[in-house]
Amino acid sequence: MIKSKKIISETQLIYKYLNKLNFSKQETLNFLNDGAFLKSKKNKDIIVTNDNIIEGVDFFKNDSPDSIAQKIITYNLSDLSAMGGIPYCYTLCLSLSSSIDHSWIKKFTDKLFFLQKKYNFFLLAGDIGKSNQLNISANFYGYVKKNCIIKRNTSKIGDSIWVTGHIGQSHIGLLASQKKIVLSKKFKNYFLNKYLFPNPCMLGSKIINFSNSCIDISDGFLGDLSKLLNNKMGVELFYTKLPFSIKAKSLINKKIVKIISLLNGGDDYELIITCPSKNDMKIINIAFKNRIKITKVGRIIDRQGIYFNGLKLILPNNSFQYFF
Amino acid sequence: MIKSKKIISETQLIYKYLNKLNFSKQETLNFLNDGAFLKSKKNKDIIVTNDNIIEGVDFFKNDSPDSIAQKIITYNLSDLSAMGGIPYCYTLCLSLSSSIDHSWIKKFTDKLFFLQKKYNFFLLAGDIGKSNQLNISANFYGYVKKNCIIKRNTSKIGDSIWVTGHIGQSHIGLLASQKKIVLSKKFKNYFLNKYLFPNPCMLGSKIINFSNSCIDISDGFLGDLSKLLNNKMGVELFYTKLPFSIKAKSLINKKIVKIISLLNGGDDYELIITCPSKNDMKIINIAFKNRIKITKVGRIIDRQGIYFNGLKLILPNNSFQYFF
Repeated sequence: MIKSKKIISETQLIYKYLNKLNFSKQETLNFLNDGAFLKSKKNKDIIVTNDNIIEGVDFFKNDSPDSIAQKIITYNLSDLSAMGGIPYCYTLCLSLSSSIDHSWIKKFTDKLFFLQKKYNFFLLAGDIGKSNQLNISANFYGYVKKNCIIKRNTSKIGDSIWVTGHIGQSHIGLLASQKKIVLSKKFKNYFLNKYLFPNPCMLGSKIINFSNSCIDISDGFLGDLSKLLNNKMGVELFYTKLPFSIKAKSLINKKIVKIISLLNGGDDYELIITCPSKNDMKIINIAFKNRIKITKVGRIIDRQGIYFNGLKLILPNNSFQYFF
Repeated sequence: MIKSKKIISETQLIYKYLNKLNFSKQETLNFLNDGAFLKSKKNKDIIVTNDNIIEGVDFFKNDSPDSIAQKIITYNLSDLSAMGGIPYCYTLCLSLSSSIDHSWIKKFTDKLFFLQKKYNFFLLAGDIGKSNQLNISANFYGYVKKNCIIKRNTSKIGDSIWVTGHIGQSHIGLLASQKKIVLSKKFKNYFLNKYLFPNPCMLGSKIINFSNSCIDISDGFLGDLSKLLNNKMGVELFYTKLPFSIKAKSLINKKIVKIISLLNGGDDYELIITCPSKNDMKIINIAFKNRIKITKVGRIIDRQGIYFNGLKLILPNNSFQYFF
């Protein structure tokens, strides 16, 4: 009997593909046990994030394995960064479907390896299972100075609001991939790349001493911004300052995309940061030193709602209904 | 339009069902952020385990939610215990299918709450997604004295081999649930309960100073025992001492089940412990104090293989092939 080329045993997965990701760190116990360990460090806490991505929800069935790897890493690194953490390691829970073969696993783990080197973290432990639908869950661990975690709900009235990078890039890529808009080949490739290979903004750990609150943009700029506010606060947005890329601006001008859809589109993985206005120059300087584009886009005010060019924005209800 | 009763939003899931599981612990940041944190403790390391359970693989589609909750908790607590850890908290990644309704979530989280109280740990953080197939992944965290983790690959020749509880109970339940064997109602209920509601053996943290290695029985007694051996070691099993329950013995005597299938059946969640024979009395006393049945079932010898009643056992190849 000729065996299918696709056969992958758990042992093969671990020894051939996953072992190289543990960077021979003592904490992994060489993947020989039922778990691993994290070292306690004096004056540090360990931030824990947990994100999963599911075929048909967070990515399409035929998306490339390196895009899927980039997404699960970026979702989690972005969460870590928003809380001020420096990446340390992660666990990976793989529920693999029968279409997964050696070539898929190689591309997937090669991208993980590349990103681990780039951001300096290792694979601590994991679990492997079989599923009809590809489902990947990861927990990330990052160290942060004790009592210095940046939180979401600690903005203050008068705070400046900063956003890193550009808004809505990934959303334009999603619209293009869904064929809801038609773009030139050059534009399509540019925005698809933003959607398929999002990068986290790792500024969070640098600004822990100067910011009041922070969140990463995963559900959309406006929705995530509103999570920084309590019910006595609102936002005055500086309409003309909103950071759209030159390419996005040209699509806005041609009425191919609407500003409001870019502000509600998700998966930017940029950071929204609030700080006392006296720290504005600190934030600018730290971003400049780290070669990260940052823009002051508004300030926190003592009126509920988001005000934009003098008008109050009515936000769509963005509490996602899971089951119908 | 009358809305279906089944609608559950992410917000409802968190506020109505999951919030009660965080036991108001500071580390959870009240589930208001993208993550949470673990406190570093002087002279302690943090053990991390990661297990997932998938519909159709680890449980059947119509298994009750309290059984599924008990399984995900037991798989992980058992791993923690085998490494010597004391449970502290966990993260939960829920990929929920459309058949999940309020009643399911209530039963599932009520069982989590019960087990959290019983074993003293809280829900630290989590993620929720939508999937065709119910898939639950959890990471558990436990503290252990620095450098005192019990490992698998540190048995020594001459070590006594101990096993807690009874072997093969859950496997008989599985056979009964699959209708591969026919049992009286009383026996069926007894063994089904062992299969659907397995309990972890939490002796691990008590014996860290006296044992050389430890593993929990998830894949089957013989397979897991062999993971404690290096390629210069074997096991002499004390055939007559193997701990089968009175009910299991009666099924063996009636030839309804075979001893070898009980020794290879999984999901016992008992511990196999090896220790220098000079520590035998310590192990007996600690188990007695903790009201845990423990049996000396063999010793580690300097010949490869598992010897049983004078004969060498040929073990089936138990490296699970995921994809065919």
